[in-house]
Amino acid sequence: MSLNCHSSKAELVDAQRQLVSEYNKLKSCNLNLDMSRGKPAASQLDLSNAILTAPITNYINCEGNDVRNYGILTGIKECRDLFGELLEINPDNIIIGGNSSLNLIYDAIARYFMFGKLGSTPWSKLDKVKFLCPVPGYDRHFAICEEFGFEMINVPMNENGPDMDMVENLVKNDSSIKGILCVPLYSNPNGVCYSDEVVTRLVSMKTAAADFTIIWDNAYGVHHVYKKTNLANIFTLAKKYNTEDRILYFFSTSKITFPGSGVALIASGDKSIAEIKKRFGVMTIGYNKVNQLKTYNFFKNAEGVLNHMKKLGEMLKEKFDIVLNKLDLEFSNSDFLTWEKPAGGYFISVNTLPECAKETVKLAKECGLILTNAGSTYPYGKDPLDSNIRIAPSYPTTDELKMAMEVFSVCVKLSAVNKLLENKGE
Amino acid sequence: MSLNCHSSKAELVDAQRQLVSEYNKLKSCNLNLDMSRGKPAASQLDLSNAILTAPITNYINCEGNDVRNYGILTGIKECRDLFGELLEINPDNIIIGGNSSLNLIYDAIARYFMFGKLGSTPWSKLDKVKFLCPVPGYDRHFAICEEFGFEMINVPMNENGPDMDMVENLVKNDSSIKGILCVPLYSNPNGVCYSDEVVTRLVSMKTAAADFTIIWDNAYGVHHVYKKTNLANIFTLAKKYNTEDRILYFFSTSKITFPGSGVALIASGDKSIAEIKKRFGVMTIGYNKVNQLKTYNFFKNAEGVLNHMKKLGEMLKEKFDIVLNKLDLEFSNSDFLTWEKPAGGYFISVNTLPECAKETVKLAKECGLILTNAGSTYPYGKDPLDSNIRIAPSYPTTDELKMAMEVFSVCVKLSAVNKLLENKGE
Repeated sequence: MSLNCHSSKAELVDAQRQLVSEYNKLKSCNLNLDMSRGKPAASQLDLSNAILTAPITNYINCEGNDVRNYGILTGIKECRDLFGELLEINPDNIIIGGNSSLNLIYDAIARYFMFGKLGSTPWSKLDKVKFLCPVPGYDRHFAICEEFGFEMINVPMNENGPDMDMVENLVKNDSSIKGILCVPLYSNPNGVCYSDEVVTRLVSMKTAAADFTIIWDNAYGVHHVYKKTNLANIFTLAKKYNTEDRILYFFSTSKITFPGSGVALIASGDKSIAEIKKRFGVMTIGYNKVNQLKTYNFFKNAEGVLNHMKKLGEMLKEKFDIVLNKLDLEFSNSDFLTWEKPAGGYFISVNTLPECAKETVKLAKECGLILTNAGSTYPYGKDPLDSNIRIAPSYPTTDELKMAMEVFSVCVKLSAVNKLLENKGE
Repeated sequence: MSLNCHSSKAELVDAQRQLVSEYNKLKSCNLNLDMSRGKPAASQLDLSNAILTAPITNYINCEGNDVRNYGILTGIKECRDLFGELLEINPDNIIIGGNSSLNLIYDAIARYFMFGKLGSTPWSKLDKVKFLCPVPGYDRHFAICEEFGFEMINVPMNENGPDMDMVENLVKNDSSIKGILCVPLYSNPNGVCYSDEVVTRLVSMKTAAADFTIIWDNAYGVHHVYKKTNLANIFTLAKKYNTEDRILYFFSTSKITFPGSGVALIASGDKSIAEIKKRFGVMTIGYNKVNQLKTYNFFKNAEGVLNHMKKLGEMLKEKFDIVLNKLDLEFSNSDFLTWEKPAGGYFISVNTLPECAKETVKLAKECGLILTNAGSTYPYGKDPLDSNIRIAPSYPTTDELKMAMEVFSVCVKLSAVNKLLENKGE
C-alpha cells in the first residue's frame, strides 16, 4: 500500500478501513508506554553505576580542600579541568553548577532579568524583551522565555543551523532582542549541527543590544551516534571579535551519567563569568562537591568521557536504527511523513502532513503510546503547520520500541488518510 | 587583673603594657586559623561518611521510580516523609530542593521579586521593598536583601525573639514591608529561641502587605547542645489564623550531614507551595534524587536524625565548653565582654565594649586568627555599636580552639584598654 497525497478517494477509503482495523487491533494490546521525554533507559544508567558504588576514601581534592565541607563556589578544580579539556574551554571560565543545565540557564536569564548584564538595564525594567528561537526547538527553553514574558520569534532552522540572514537582520536593528536559544550540536529535536560559518556569524554579527546573549546549550556535545560531527569552538571564534562575553555556554552530564544526579556547568567570557561568580556568592553556598569528585573519579579525563560515550552511542544506535528502519519501511514511498537521519543526539524529528501532528499524537495516546505533545517543539506550543513530532527512542526497550513504532506508523497513516478524506469532503 | 570600664588610668596603662607583651608573644606563634564561618569539623563530617560509602543497590524508590532518572520534581516521597516526621510538617507541603537552603531562600525571594506572590505585584515593580531584620542576625540573609535592593530595618532581638511590639507596629501600616528574616531556634549568632508567644504573634499579626512573608530558616532546628528547646510548630499556629501561606519554611542537612552535599527543603501553605511547584517546573528538571535516597537510607526516620544529632551535639558541646569556660575565666569579673550561653546551634555571640569589635577582630587577624568580620551580624555590615562578634567554635580542633580563645581574650582586653585610654585622652 503506497499511499500519498495524490492517492484517489477510493484508495484512501480502502486504506482507511484497513488502517482502522489495524489500529483497533493494536489498541487491544493495551500498550502503556511513555516516549514523551528524552529519558535514558535503565541499561544506559547502569553504565554509570560505578559513580555511586565506587568506594570513596579520600575527600580531599587536588587543592587540599575537603569536598564534604563548605567552600569552592566555582566547583572543584579537577572537575573544571576535566570539562575544560573535554570542551576546550579555559577552566577559569567554567563554573561547575548543580545538577541541571536547564536550571543554570533559567538562573542566568533570571539574573539578567533582575539585575541586567554587565551594567545593562535589567530586562524586567524594559517594555519588551524578545528572544530568537530556532524552530523546531527545545520545549523547556521556550517555557523559560514564556515564564519571563519574553516575546519569542521563530527562526527557521536550516541544514547548518538557524537562518543567519534572518538572525543578522533582526538583531542589528532591534535592541529589544536580547538573545538566541541554541542547541548547537545534534539539536533538539531535529539533530541539526551548526556549521563553522553559522557559529562565526553568531559571534561576529552586530547586535543592537549590547547585552545580547547566545544561550549555547551544548546538551549533546559528545552524543555521537552514527558519526562524530565537529562543532566549532565558539569561544575561539568569539575571541577574534571580542565577543566572548556574549556567550553563555552550558553543558551537563544529565545524558552522560544520571539525569538530575550529574553535574552541570556554565562558561562565559572573562567579564561575564566574573559577574556570575559574584552573584553566585550571594545566591548559594556552593554546589555538591562530593558529586563532582565522584564524577571526576569515574572519568579521570576527557578520554574517559569519550570512551563512555562510545558505549552509550552504541546503545542509542540500536534504538535509532529501529526507528529509522521502520520509517524507511513504512514511508520511503509515501509523502505522509518526512524526516532527517540525525548523526547523533537523542531525538528523531519527523514531519507529518500539515494538520496531522496533533491528531497522530492523539491517536497514539488512545492506543497507549504517549509521544511528546505535538506543537511542543515550537514556542507557545504552536506549530504553525501542525506537522512536527519529536520521537524520543531512548527510554523503551527494543521490543517496546518496535511495538511503539508499529503504533506510530499506523497513527501517522490513519491521521493522514482521515485528513485527506476530510479535505475531499468526507 | 580584674579590669573594667571604671579602672583607673594607671591600672589601664599597666594592663596595656602587659597585654601588648602577651599579644606579641602569641603573635610569634604564627597561628593560622580560620574561625570565620560555621564550618563543621572533619570529625563531625566523618559521622556521616556512611552516606557516601554505604553500598547502594536499589535505585527504585518507594513509589517505583528510578532515582537515577528524570522526574519527581518535589523530591522522593521517603525523604519528604522523613523530614515531615522530623519537623511535623505535612509531607505534601514539602519540596526537597537541592543542597543549600540559602539557595532556596534566594530563589524564593527572586521569584517574588520577578513574578509576585499569589497574584501580588512583582516586588521588582515596586518603588520600595523593606525587610525586617532581627539583629544581630545572619550575614548571608542580609546579603540577599542587599542584592535585591531591599531596605533592611533592624529589629532588636530580645530574649524570646524579635521585639514583637515593634514588628507589629511596623507591618500593620507599611505595605512595603514584605517580610521578616527568622532563624527561630538557636538563632545565628546569639542562640535566641523564639517563644510560643512570639511565633503566635508572627502568624496572627495584621500585615498591610498581603504578600508579607516570614522567612523561617530553621537551620538549627535539631541542633541541641546543652538542652533541647522546643520550638512551636509555626504551621499549626498559623492554621488558626489562616496564614500558612505567609510562611516559607526552610531546613537543610548542611550542618547535619555535609554542607553543600546534603539536602535542603522548602515548605509552605497549600496555595503557596502549589505556586512554588508550578514555577519549579520551569526552573529545573528536579534535584539530585540519588542523594535524597542515600540520605534517607542513612537516617530511615526522624529518630535516626535525632540520634545522629545527639552525637554531633556532644562534639559541639566540647567546643562550646572551651569557649564558654574561657570567657567565664577571663571576663566574669569584667565588663569588657558580655555574652549569653546558648542552649544549642552553632555560634556564641559576644559583645565587646562599644567601638571595640572591629579592633578586636583586626588584632586577632594580625595574630593569625580569622574571626567573622565585625559588623557582619548586622545589615549592610554596620553594627551601630561596633560591639558584636560571632564566635564559630565548630571547625578548629580542641587544641586549636584553646589557643584561639587565648588570642581572642587578649585581643578583647587590649582593644578595650586601648579604647578606654584613647577616651581618657591618651
